[in-house]
Amino acid sequence: MERLIGVDIGGTRTRVGAVRAGQVLARRVFPTRGLAEVKEAIAALLKEVGWEKPDAIGVGAPAPMDMRQGLILNAPNLPHWDGVNVVEGLRETFRCPVFLGNDANCAALGELVHGWKARNFLYVTWSTGIGGGIVAGGQVVWGATGQAGEIGHITLDPNGPLCRCGKRGCLEAIAGGAALGDRALERVGQRLSAKELVERARKGEPGALSLIDSACLAMGQALAIVAELLEPEMIIFGGGLTNSWDFLGPKVVTGLQTMSRVRPRVELTKLGDDVGLLGAAALPLHFPKL
Amino acid sequence: MERLIGVDIGGTRTRVGAVRAGQVLARRVFPTRGLAEVKEAIAALLKEVGWEKPDAIGVGAPAPMDMRQGLILNAPNLPHWDGVNVVEGLRETFRCPVFLGNDANCAALGELVHGWKARNFLYVTWSTGIGGGIVAGGQVVWGATGQAGEIGHITLDPNGPLCRCGKRGCLEAIAGGAALGDRALERVGQRLSAKELVERARKGEPGALSLIDSACLAMGQALAIVAELLEPEMIIFGGGLTNSWDFLGPKVVTGLQTMSRVRPRVELTKLGDDVGLLGAAALPLHFPKL
Repeated sequence: MERLIGVDIGGTRTRVGAVRAGQVLARRVFPTRGLAEVKEAIAALLKEVGWEKPDAIGVGAPAPMDMRQGLILNAPNLPHWDGVNVVEGLRETFRCPVFLGNDANCAALGELVHGWKARNFLYVTWSTGIGGGIVAGGQVVWGATGQAGEIGHITLDPNGPLCRCGKRGCLEAIAGGAALGDRALERVGQRLSAKELVERARKGEPGALSLIDSACLAMGQALAIVAELLEPEMIIFGGGLTNSWDFLGPKVVTGLQTMSRVRPRVELTKLGDDVGLLGAAALPLHFPKL
Repeated sequence: MERLIGVDIGGTRTRVGAVRAGQVLARRVFPTRGLAEVKEAIAALLKEVGWEKPDAIGVGAPAPMDMRQGLILNAPNLPHWDGVNVVEGLRETFRCPVFLGNDANCAALGELVHGWKARNFLYVTWSTGIGGGIVAGGQVVWGATGQAGEIGHITLDPNGPLCRCGKRGCLEAIAGGAALGDRALERVGQRLSAKELVERARKGEPGALSLIDSACLAMGQALAIVAELLEPEMIIFGGGLTNSWDFLGPKVVTGLQTMSRVRPRVELTKLGDDVGLLGAAALPLHFPKL
């Protein structure tokens, strides 16, 4: 398996790449639509790199799924993908094995194979939502059906704010970019992006600073919980909010160190925006027995 | 490795057993002291089952440790074992390989090899303290140095009661047997054992019932967190408080189901009081690369 295609379906953008030996030879990045657009991008990439067909395709998606069947389920964020059998759809067109996995678990796999390469770590995407992937003993923890790693949906406060998953007080409902926007509307009086909120907090605006401090404390608590449960050597961050890591990182690490006896190193991904793409491309070689 | 000795050092009792093919051929149970008493018990067992020497010895202990060196560290609950190199001590006397691991991780290993045999589960000891062991993808999660699984010390409430580990609001400080005794003194006006507290809660005494309800809700939240993080098929309970499982279990499961989208089966250990012993005896065959 030398000629691999990785597909990283995001809430807003989809990234498709042709990967060989951990190198992205060519990529396409475009607004997330459906299967047809992904097929077009793959066809264009194959032409560009001169491959007649790929050896295998790996796809990561931020949605509940049946990994065994390769089927995306209940994906309110991805209307074009809800109920789509990704594996069958791509296999018919490209006549090669196709594998589907959770996007954050794929990112953890990318970090394991091509990035920090630690034996025990948590990967966190901190963005509009919050996703996670776990590596323990050098293996990705997929869970019973591939849904493991959902650090965004651990309950930190049973009476906390309503989460879009339907539960209350999830980490994502306190610290996710979308939730911060909602809470800015309540507290600061206008809807702000997470980036704008951080800018105001940097300037010391009390409402913004208090929201950001709560978010970082909640993130620190979530990391501390994972540290006590899994004793990772490292915690690795990716996602949009890491653009403000100089401001957010120290607050998060303080929370972690207050609430955990284990002291993992906290670092940003080595693979930048390609982490999910490289992880998806590694999926064919590391697909779990489920 | 057919002739195995398992040693399960508990806070109050130590259990030592001669194990072959997952069967405990003979056992000794005695109040926990130090290395000398364990050596005596092993010698007596060897005589009883007619083994000249064991093929290997596995030891589980409820303490921080250096698994690589076989050394118990900072064990305030186990004064006779603090700083003891268990592996060297037993190897010199019995001239066989010796392995040391965390007691709850050993119990999870016992359940994996001889009990429920699930591929993805959490094992919880609910007793004076609260310990845990995790199995993911058919492998025990040991963590970077063997300290993983500490569900008793995940922070549920950063402003909660002080835990004996020095942190605040750990699960153990809310729901552990010892903590329940302390809180009974504050709320009910007298120090009670967890068993007595449960009896009063069963009779509907409001103070006792409220403590037990909070403990079960906290346990349910902790299980829900693990369910979202690891997507286990099962959660398996052992320990003294499971004697009141008919009363506590439904409350715990309600909490779990409210706070998690994953619905693992919740069951009691299949191995009863031998779970730690059988797990320790399995350690020589399943010792991790660390």
